[in-house]
Amino acid sequence: MITHINPVGSMNLLSQIEVDRLKQSASGDLYQLFRNCALAVLNSGSKTDSSKEILERYKSFDINVIRRERGVKLELFNPPEHAFVDGEIIRGIQEHLFSVLRDIIYVNSQLQSVKQFNLTSSLHITDLVFSILRNARAVHPGVDPSMVVCWGGHSINPVEYQYTREVGNELGLRELNICTGCGPGAMEGPMKGAAVGHAKQRVSGSRYIGLTEPSIIAAEPPNPIVNELVILPDIEKRLEAFVRLGHGIIIFPGGVGTAEEILYLLGIMMHPENRHQPLPIILTGPKESANYFRSVDEFIGNTLGSEAQSLYQIIIDDPAEVARRVKNAMPLVRDYRKSVGDAYSFNWSLKIEPEFQLPFVPDHDSMANLNLHWEQAPQQLAANLRRAFSGIVAGNVKEGGIRAIEKKGPFLINGDPKLMKMMDKLLQQFVEQQRMKLPGSAYVPCYRIHR
Amino acid sequence: MITHINPVGSMNLLSQIEVDRLKQSASGDLYQLFRNCALAVLNSGSKTDSSKEILERYKSFDINVIRRERGVKLELFNPPEHAFVDGEIIRGIQEHLFSVLRDIIYVNSQLQSVKQFNLTSSLHITDLVFSILRNARAVHPGVDPSMVVCWGGHSINPVEYQYTREVGNELGLRELNICTGCGPGAMEGPMKGAAVGHAKQRVSGSRYIGLTEPSIIAAEPPNPIVNELVILPDIEKRLEAFVRLGHGIIIFPGGVGTAEEILYLLGIMMHPENRHQPLPIILTGPKESANYFRSVDEFIGNTLGSEAQSLYQIIIDDPAEVARRVKNAMPLVRDYRKSVGDAYSFNWSLKIEPEFQLPFVPDHDSMANLNLHWEQAPQQLAANLRRAFSGIVAGNVKEGGIRAIEKKGPFLINGDPKLMKMMDKLLQQFVEQQRMKLPGSAYVPCYRIHR
Amino acid sequence: MITHINPVGSMNLLSQIEVDRLKQSASGDLYQLFRNCALAVLNSGSKTDSSKEILERYKSFDINVIRRERGVKLELFNPPEHAFVDGEIIRGIQEHLFSVLRDIIYVNSQLQSVKQFNLTSSLHITDLVFSILRNARAVHPGVDPSMVVCWGGHSINPVEYQYTREVGNELGLRELNICTGCGPGAMEGPMKGAAVGHAKQRVSGSRYIGLTEPSIIAAEPPNPIVNELVILPDIEKRLEAFVRLGHGIIIFPGGVGTAEEILYLLGIMMHPENRHQPLPIILTGPKESANYFRSVDEFIGNTLGSEAQSLYQIIIDDPAEVARRVKNAMPLVRDYRKSVGDAYSFNWSLKIEPEFQLPFVPDHDSMANLNLHWEQAPQQLAANLRRAFSGIVAGNVKEGGIRAIEKKGPFLINGDPKLMKMMDKLLQQFVEQQRMKLPGSAYVPCYRIHR
Amino acid sequence: MITHINPVGSMNLLSQIEVDRLKQSASGDLYQLFRNCALAVLNSGSKTDSSKEILERYKSFDINVIRRERGVKLELFNPPEHAFVDGEIIRGIQEHLFSVLRDIIYVNSQLQSVKQFNLTSSLHITDLVFSILRNARAVHPGVDPSMVVCWGGHSINPVEYQYTREVGNELGLRELNICTGCGPGAMEGPMKGAAVGHAKQRVSGSRYIGLTEPSIIAAEPPNPIVNELVILPDIEKRLEAFVRLGHGIIIFPGGVGTAEEILYLLGIMMHPENRHQPLPIILTGPKESANYFRSVDEFIGNTLGSEAQSLYQIIIDDPAEVARRVKNAMPLVRDYRKSVGDAYSFNWSLKIEPEFQLPFVPDHDSMANLNLHWEQAPQQLAANLRRAFSGIVAGNVKEGGIRAIEKKGPFLINGDPKLMKMMDKLLQQFVEQQRMKLPGSAYVPCYRIHR
Repeated sequence: MITHINPVGSMNLLSQIEVDRLKQSASGDLYQLFRNCALAVLNSGSKTDSSKEILERYKSFDINVIRRERGVKLELFNPPEHAFVDGEIIRGIQEHLFSVLRDIIYVNSQLQSVKQFNLTSSLHITDLVFSILRNARAVHPGVDPSMVVCWGGHSINPVEYQYTREVGNELGLRELNICTGCGPGAMEGPMKGAAVGHAKQRVSGSRYIGLTEPSIIAAEPPNPIVNELVILPDIEKRLEAFVRLGHGIIIFPGGVGTAEEILYLLGIMMHPENRHQPLPIILTGPKESANYFRSVDEFIGNTLGSEAQSLYQIIIDDPAEVARRVKNAMPLVRDYRKSVGDAYSFNWSLKIEPEFQLPFVPDHDSMANLNLHWEQAPQQLAANLRRAFSGIVAGNVKEGGIRAIEKKGPFLINGDPKLMKMMDKLLQQFVEQQRMKLPGSAYVPCYRIHR
Repeated sequence: MITHINPVGSMNLLSQIEVDRLKQSASGDLYQLFRNCALAVLNSGSKTDSSKEILERYKSFDINVIRRERGVKLELFNPPEHAFVDGEIIRGIQEHLFSVLRDIIYVNSQLQSVKQFNLTSSLHITDLVFSILRNARAVHPGVDPSMVVCWGGHSINPVEYQYTREVGNELGLRELNICTGCGPGAMEGPMKGAAVGHAKQRVSGSRYIGLTEPSIIAAEPPNPIVNELVILPDIEKRLEAFVRLGHGIIIFPGGVGTAEEILYLLGIMMHPENRHQPLPIILTGPKESANYFRSVDEFIGNTLGSEAQSLYQIIIDDPAEVARRVKNAMPLVRDYRKSVGDAYSFNWSLKIEPEFQLPFVPDHDSMANLNLHWEQAPQQLAANLRRAFSGIVAGNVKEGGIRAIEKKGPFLINGDPKLMKMMDKLLQQFVEQQRMKLPGSAYVPCYRIHR
Repeated sequence: MITHINPVGSMNLLSQIEVDRLKQSASGDLYQLFRNCALAVLNSGSKTDSSKEILERYKSFDINVIRRERGVKLELFNPPEHAFVDGEIIRGIQEHLFSVLRDIIYVNSQLQSVKQFNLTSSLHITDLVFSILRNARAVHPGVDPSMVVCWGGHSINPVEYQYTREVGNELGLRELNICTGCGPGAMEGPMKGAAVGHAKQRVSGSRYIGLTEPSIIAAEPPNPIVNELVILPDIEKRLEAFVRLGHGIIIFPGGVGTAEEILYLLGIMMHPENRHQPLPIILTGPKESANYFRSVDEFIGNTLGSEAQSLYQIIIDDPAEVARRVKNAMPLVRDYRKSVGDAYSFNWSLKIEPEFQLPFVPDHDSMANLNLHWEQAPQQLAANLRRAFSGIVAGNVKEGGIRAIEKKGPFLINGDPKLMKMMDKLLQQFVEQQRMKLPGSAYVPCYRIHR
Repeated sequence: MITHINPVGSMNLLSQIEVDRLKQSASGDLYQLFRNCALAVLNSGSKTDSSKEILERYKSFDINVIRRERGVKLELFNPPEHAFVDGEIIRGIQEHLFSVLRDIIYVNSQLQSVKQFNLTSSLHITDLVFSILRNARAVHPGVDPSMVVCWGGHSINPVEYQYTREVGNELGLRELNICTGCGPGAMEGPMKGAAVGHAKQRVSGSRYIGLTEPSIIAAEPPNPIVNELVILPDIEKRLEAFVRLGHGIIIFPGGVGTAEEILYLLGIMMHPENRHQPLPIILTGPKESANYFRSVDEFIGNTLGSEAQSLYQIIIDDPAEVARRVKNAMPLVRDYRKSVGDAYSFNWSLKIEPEFQLPFVPDHDSMANLNLHWEQAPQQLAANLRRAFSGIVAGNVKEGGIRAIEKKGPFLINGDPKLMKMMDKLLQQFVEQQRMKLPGSAYVPCYRIHR
């Protein structure tokens, strides 16, 4: 079965040179990545979300960029049937498909055609994050602050999932929009809840932004509610996109990935230049999950200190209160942006140091060499702890990480013994709370803490 | 707690004379009805849907129409809290509240100011139904046919409920809109499903019409997805509104109410003048419910004959096929309306005989006097059977009916023995399938068939 | 040549009973009026605006209301060709045509079907004016005040015409909308100017309301810029529509009609209950027309006193200042309406006494019997002077008046000698300034002041 | 007086690096050009359009690009007052101002940051034209063909001007949009006429595109109706933008510039690969201008032959017929684009040879060396004749050309004697018809034909 799909969004207006470059990129080195991400997106309606299973089942799937006088088309061979209704591709999936083309192929080919772009410069990295979001039409100038970033695990339990929906509903009732990592669990619940809240308030033009990265999209494909899908090149740019787009951040229970996000966020917010940034940060969950936040809060208090703890609030079992706090902060965000001449739609004035921007590639060496000692500024320590957790996420679920572990055994992490003990304790608690893998399977750690 | 609520929709543009008339009506005979319907609507977000329980809990609730220079306002005393978010009424509930004012009070006061309106004339009844719908802005001229009426029980089982959602999803994926009786069960499932389908297709301007009547709205309050709520004066006008607004009709499993609807529909479609009306009628359910449709189909075949059976299709366990059939019929509906010069938005050319329009008030006398014999045209028989089932619905759930039964015992129904046996069998099957009351409670019949 | 025209606006959603009533009215007593108004509207693009000439040229023109299942259509025989482009009627003319049907036929047939409507009651008259405007969709709830009524002569000189355009341009640049009597001259210039101003400011949704009456529409057909045409039954209801819709009033040079409008307006604004109404009233013209305003101002000062004079400002030769004053008053209007609970879109709280609402039918008797003496309250005197001028307008240009004069000679006006002298002087000045008829022809007075 | 102006359109979403680059460009080499174009645009509402006079009067005017966290702002010193209303810049002028920033500064700085851009490659030139138009949001994908390019002189006589308005009105009545060179005369008339036609048809979203170039914008500033202003780098790219955006081309009387346009167009349309392009080309004017078209047609017949003549139609004094022909061709354009897979919004498939794309810089050398002999393909000859006329335009009105002539005397043109005679004759006719300069002044030729 062969189908041709018309472009939508910014892919609808390409020049012939751009199309040629696209065609070339899509059939070159990037082909495999492009094909797999496209397949993930085409498959998003289905029941399974094991990327392995999907790749297995649709072995004969193929995708080509084809050139028309008027621009680009995509040619699909043997795509998953459930992406179509009576022979027509579902509009939302069509959009996601062209988001993949746009962010994986187009951004890449644009990057290569630009002179003097320096991906080790903080300024240039932020510029790239902005350009990707703008090209995805995710930056809406002049609109009042309303974007709530929701973080949390993709495999939370049913009680927690229901809680994320309720928080979403309360956010939606207050006409706030949602931005998540676009997979299942805590990334899906708030969107579903908000969709109901928005319907009750007759809100139109709701935004459900999903920010993902190539190495994770297959494992966590965008749910169909996501109406703006953006694929950032790596976790660091994805995290930067979250904090520059969001006007408030809610953190639900999660595993190491969520811990990585919290450390990233606190590390940035502790920077002296960000002292006046009015970003509401709320850690929340049902009463059954109170332990989780106790563990996390304790770990932060012990490692980064009480100043770090003062940056967030923990609210247990009160969805309306969570939403109310975020809502009440929106005018403060607005006033602050106005006072410093910043945009409402992209937080240019947030200071992010290179150590939070430069990609950390976790392997046995880089993990072993992390500086995990007390003799550094707290935000520095936050940056390094962030990297440690990032490596564990990679070892758990990202292809490269998994393969490295299979070959050389678990990552070895070194550091100050007291610090290592705290870290170990936190990770053990995650294991006990079954936050390290999909529930049911026993977790085999991908790391070992050296004492 | 006192709150003032601003008008929306057509209630936003009243003259001072209209407001005065409204104020008078709302505090006169109609007050109790108005108050209770308003309370039902304000309560629609809550968990319970027992109207008795609601009335009990909100005894101190009161509502007044107040007059401003600019028009009307509603004043609420002690309304249910969950209708509000941070002190502001939820927009959808506000709309429903003014739908109640509009259809219960305004329509009434308008009716009284018009000369020569004759509610026994078929033409005038249709005119009233149209006027109510137009005044509710539910008639959209010039839009292609897409309105699917979904009928079925309000207390179906979870498997059936899930099935109605799946059919709704498939309808939504095909950009069709939904019109139901606006309560729970089969009236809610298709809307929820369609909302997801519409989201996947990025459809905006979706319509979820709920048509109800004053005597039932408290027991079956509109779900929050309903974005157009219209309250017709009685079941006959409500049924007429369904068949004139709908471009296709899907019937899910249900109880006596659903049987009433089927008989009404077949009785009309069997009229010779409606022979060429291309209205798709589909009876459908999951495979677990196949028996239900076997019972109903058998009863229709035995009473109204194979001609009646040829008017519908039964599709078991195939949501996509159901939606596809309806979708494929839309161009036929369009072409037919065009060819006879009829509107797409209101089926003026559908012939409805007065026996289907004139209100049937079920009491012991009228029920006993129904002509339930073979010696009449099939559509006549359909009309009388419809009335019999309508009476049983009233005896089951409507206030007037319940009180009559409490006082005088079950309704007695007379008729041809063979016919009576068929009817009894069907009703027994409903009881066995637990379709006569909310599951769990044992059903005590409100009727007795006389042999 | 026969053409069928589809309905637009509120005529697009009629019930079959309404269509039948319409059909009947349109072929009965009202036929001739309906036909002539329709012809005037169809002819609005042409060069000539002599209604006599038009009626002569299109003798064979005929119009029928026809009934389709879906509603109404208009059938035209031999309509003016320039109303069509390649066989399709021009959309603006189509709208005007259905405005004629709506306001002349539909309003009439609705009126007849309503009980207890009393056209001698002040309340009921206002209700009718509101209902006509609402039915024409000219009342937009919730929109901030911006409607500027412009009055003035239909046969002003080129310098004055250019001045009205410049004022219109300045109003348009300030995003204000225009409402006039919808003929040529001072009724057209401000709209043309505002259209350019709106284009410069990229304003969309501009409103150019034309309020007319059956007896004048043929002589002063709506210019094509008018995008909302409403035909009020008589001059009194038309004047009431102006003052209740407008948020500011600008008066350009004109003749007796304009004097009638000024007296009407001052008579109302002098009512003690209207003391706090913040309605900006500006008399303005180019420096060449300063004399006109001197005459008018003098007459008002002498007859109604300085209190009346304090209600308006005279601005000579400063279009930007005129627009600025009106613009600056808009927040006051808004605040006032809010403070008294009145609508922004219709000034319910403006007190209008019956003497300004009840139709004055000018004939030799009624003109002779006007009370034009000093012994009455100033607003009473204003009402009677208004009637005197209204009679002279009728004698000049309205069919009934012209015929009466032809038969019985000029109207005789009686009154206090000093007052009569003032009136005579004003009218003589109008004659000298060539404001009594189209320039070129010598004016033969239709009145005689009795001394 | 200092004012800060906020960005609109695509200038509203710049990254900080882009703003920095912009700031640098705007204060560097391009400053003078940027300042003068900005001044021209700010002055567009005023009476005079002598660029010299404007520059003289606003000597103290200055403009700066300033950087805010959120993006760019413009700072104006002593701007012309009439660009403001009560202290606020007129929205249309604000848009034009940012068009100048976008097309003069931003496009330039973008160009410099892109690798491997080759402005001698046909493909790259077209890519640039497309990119400029896309960046200006002037390419609307998926919209049916409706863009009519109107060419003709900027100093036509009043009869001709009125004729262009009437053609515009007829185009507007047929819901066609207008694209011109955006100055006065034949570039303004069709827009004004179309605006009235659109108003009559209640068309919203009308497009009035003005395509200009830096060297001409001061002399021919955009009229206020232009709602999309795009400044192309030179005349060749401007002409390419016209023919790729337009779906039909109407040519009114004009001078040498118009002749240049005609030769450009015919040269392209004569290319064998463009044989099937269904582009309607109509030469039209009032009957008083018939001579003009006779001269031009004769010249084309004699130089390029009857094949060239067959590419256009001459219609004298029939605005409705002109519009009808263009309108009737729109479905053909649509079908053709569809059949070859081309966009409706940009004619990629039109073949344009480099000789029509590469900038021709007219000076005494390049003019003297033009190949104006018969021994070449007709489209080649058209290209060279186009260059000759382009040089004369420069000598007449562009700054560089005028200065060269002042210094070295008239351009000398060589060529085949017979051809030279034809050219001379045509130019003489233009002089006689007063088409070479603003009427009133005697024309001193800037060229001499060598025999």
